[in-house]
Amino acid sequence: MASQRPPIGEGVEYLFRPRGVAVIGASRKPGKVGYMVLYNLKNSYRGPIYPVNPNADEILGFKAYPSVLDVPDPVELAVIVVPAQRVPSVMEQVGRRGIKTAIIISAGFREVGEEGAKLERQVISIARKYGVRVLGPNCLGVYSPSTGINTMFLDPEKQSLPGNGPIAFISQSGALGAALLDVAALRGLGLSKFVSIGNRADIDEADLLAYLKNDPHTKVIALYVEGVEDGPTFRRALEDTTPVKPVVVLKAGKTSAGARAAASHTGSLAGSYQIYNAVFKQTGAIEVLHTEELFDIAQALALQPPMRGNRVAIITVGGGSGVMATDWLSELGLEVPMFSQSTQEKLRRILLPIASPRNPVDITGSGTEDHMAESTRIALESGEVDGIFLIPYFNIATMTERLADLMQPIAQKARELGIPIVASVTGGQKSWRIAKLFEAKTGIPVYPGEHRAAKAMWALRFYGKWLQRLGRL
Amino acid sequence: MASQRPPIGEGVEYLFRPRGVAVIGASRKPGKVGYMVLYNLKNSYRGPIYPVNPNADEILGFKAYPSVLDVPDPVELAVIVVPAQRVPSVMEQVGRRGIKTAIIISAGFREVGEEGAKLERQVISIARKYGVRVLGPNCLGVYSPSTGINTMFLDPEKQSLPGNGPIAFISQSGALGAALLDVAALRGLGLSKFVSIGNRADIDEADLLAYLKNDPHTKVIALYVEGVEDGPTFRRALEDTTPVKPVVVLKAGKTSAGARAAASHTGSLAGSYQIYNAVFKQTGAIEVLHTEELFDIAQALALQPPMRGNRVAIITVGGGSGVMATDWLSELGLEVPMFSQSTQEKLRRILLPIASPRNPVDITGSGTEDHMAESTRIALESGEVDGIFLIPYFNIATMTERLADLMQPIAQKARELGIPIVASVTGGQKSWRIAKLFEAKTGIPVYPGEHRAAKAMWALRFYGKWLQRLGRL
Repeated sequence: MASQRPPIGEGVEYLFRPRGVAVIGASRKPGKVGYMVLYNLKNSYRGPIYPVNPNADEILGFKAYPSVLDVPDPVELAVIVVPAQRVPSVMEQVGRRGIKTAIIISAGFREVGEEGAKLERQVISIARKYGVRVLGPNCLGVYSPSTGINTMFLDPEKQSLPGNGPIAFISQSGALGAALLDVAALRGLGLSKFVSIGNRADIDEADLLAYLKNDPHTKVIALYVEGVEDGPTFRRALEDTTPVKPVVVLKAGKTSAGARAAASHTGSLAGSYQIYNAVFKQTGAIEVLHTEELFDIAQALALQPPMRGNRVAIITVGGGSGVMATDWLSELGLEVPMFSQSTQEKLRRILLPIASPRNPVDITGSGTEDHMAESTRIALESGEVDGIFLIPYFNIATMTERLADLMQPIAQKARELGIPIVASVTGGQKSWRIAKLFEAKTGIPVYPGEHRAAKAMWALRFYGKWLQRLGRL
Repeated sequence: MASQRPPIGEGVEYLFRPRGVAVIGASRKPGKVGYMVLYNLKNSYRGPIYPVNPNADEILGFKAYPSVLDVPDPVELAVIVVPAQRVPSVMEQVGRRGIKTAIIISAGFREVGEEGAKLERQVISIARKYGVRVLGPNCLGVYSPSTGINTMFLDPEKQSLPGNGPIAFISQSGALGAALLDVAALRGLGLSKFVSIGNRADIDEADLLAYLKNDPHTKVIALYVEGVEDGPTFRRALEDTTPVKPVVVLKAGKTSAGARAAASHTGSLAGSYQIYNAVFKQTGAIEVLHTEELFDIAQALALQPPMRGNRVAIITVGGGSGVMATDWLSELGLEVPMFSQSTQEKLRRILLPIASPRNPVDITGSGTEDHMAESTRIALESGEVDGIFLIPYFNIATMTERLADLMQPIAQKARELGIPIVASVTGGQKSWRIAKLFEAKTGIPVYPGEHRAAKAMWALRFYGKWLQRLGRL
């Protein structure tokens, strides 16, 4: 039987910052998992790399060793890609070699049935004997742009990976995690760390949260979870983390049919969703409904301050979008209060006669970048709102990338005041080129639809309320 | 006072298929509305075009006329872009000239207050005297790729327009409508017609529905509505249309704050949302929540048959996505029943040993295009499901564009059987290139997320149920 759970967070650092990595089962054959892992590691990691393969002298320019025991220099991380049956003996060697942490990429464990589960328990028992922490098995390992390491076997010809940034992402599903890395790259989102936890035989969400809580590269933690095994520890880890940085959770397997599907996927019990839902509520974790929201909301929390109250100003070039934004914010418990007469007067002075200064502030399709920037400034200074929701349409003549330059200092000031700004853009390719530039220059996240920007704002308020409740905002 | 409402649908055809178009207020100055309208018309319309401008002999290569009364040849549509104050006298001329239908692009009517409202009533009164139908004022007019006419002033340098296709789209908001045309182009959606109804002083949703119901180019009608004025007629129009083709509605101004915003946008009362909601339910209109869903669902209904029952097969390469798809389908009232032993046996025979043949059918990340295509065929032939939900990840090595070729005949057969297929893809740029190709070849709509594909499937079932209730399916 496997011994007690090691101290929370122990050994996790070696996943991201090892001195020396051994790839056990490295292959010379392009396309093989053991080749791709080494290939990607070579292109990401600046420290020493030791392929282990008894039938090779050299792979991808690195000297190969018959066993990990033969590697002369410090090794803190072992990446294991040998067939499942050979993992126990490999783990013995890893333990004897004094390696701190191992990633088992190999599949063929608990996810294939009782035989595999037995093998998995055997491997963990060996690891615990030597004090080796284990990520996986049946996982992709880690991708850490913030520290430069990639142990995944993903083919760069088939998908992209995001660059460095403030979001850490932990996924129970490897395939989904990989596909979402590709999405993050497409969206231009930066990640500090990605961890695929696979069967989660040892290192789990709680270990990773404990590490990421103190990781200076991580501002927000995003989780994809089907089910956790050690509920109380998970709960405590959430409790410890959310006062320091926001945790966004996507829980799959919520319905009974979904839970059945999850059981046949990761072999773990999804458990009663009501319990998860209650835990998320009680610990201040921000639960999201789907993968788009996971990134939408993580991005908002990474770029913008938490919101201190419920009042939102909408500044729009399109009346219809202003109406929809109002609907969505209202349905999510936020308010779109009319501006005071004096603020309306200030707005009226700078806007076109056909514009509406109430709230939504409708600068109209003839409104300019100056109208939007000045309205934002007036809203900020009014003291009448806690957040600002911008709707520039970049397909209209008077709304160009100049808006980004005008908004940059205003966005900076808003951040200092603790007033978050989000934006929604409806448009095509040309609009999105400008929107992405606007986002990069101002740090204001831009979403393709009022509903998505409104949900992002809701999350900023949710987290603000949580911090207020804890007396931290 | 304006006289009675003209017969429903009268004159609408001239918006889309006029013999001869006069542009009253055509301008020689690039960038001006009167120039852009003529410019876009020139690039879209194959019939005769008559600019009307007392100070020009020729504009953009067309002979110009001092008044529409001077145009010698047949004119069935007048596009009016003169300042609001001059519209009454122009409308007199349009009426005397015997023109059937006019589009008033000009703003400065009801939307600016009581003065404008008076002017608008005057214009409509003149139009009714002569039997001229009027679209607008304060609108973009029409864009009809299916018949080749574009009366909008949108700048092609700033935004794209979608090509020809099966979706008709009616928008109460011009700015939003324009931005959504740009979105449709980005998504590769084809439109038969786009109509911006502006202040809706005469031609309204009911007129357009009556026409589009019989339009052979239109398979689905999508509506953006803030509020209608002639409720009973709108309701009857929906009732008449939904047995023939699906109507998808996005209603804005649902909350009290949103309704207030709508009142200050289009000047019309958004009314009680409960009434709209009830009307949509009773008439079989498919209500959607936001702009993404408007197109998601219109596309599904355009490409796939209505669904005859609640049972869905999920065929996925990613277990996690299968779980989320199951959750979403379940939450939307659909079922993901386990396959019978004999169907599971058939699946097991063609799949990898690690695959799961229950439902979701998890072909796993090592599954191939053949596995997905064959599983779909087996699911189709099983008689155990009414719809199929595919989740191919195109970032994995074994899932290439070959899937499109394999699925093409199967998709065709499914359509003949009345079994809809939708797909969800999570991935980046490379994946989406393949996904779009897959969509084009198979006619299976692909969505970026399980939640969106599930909602599309829900809509196919919603419409199927409606037709069944009417005894039409």
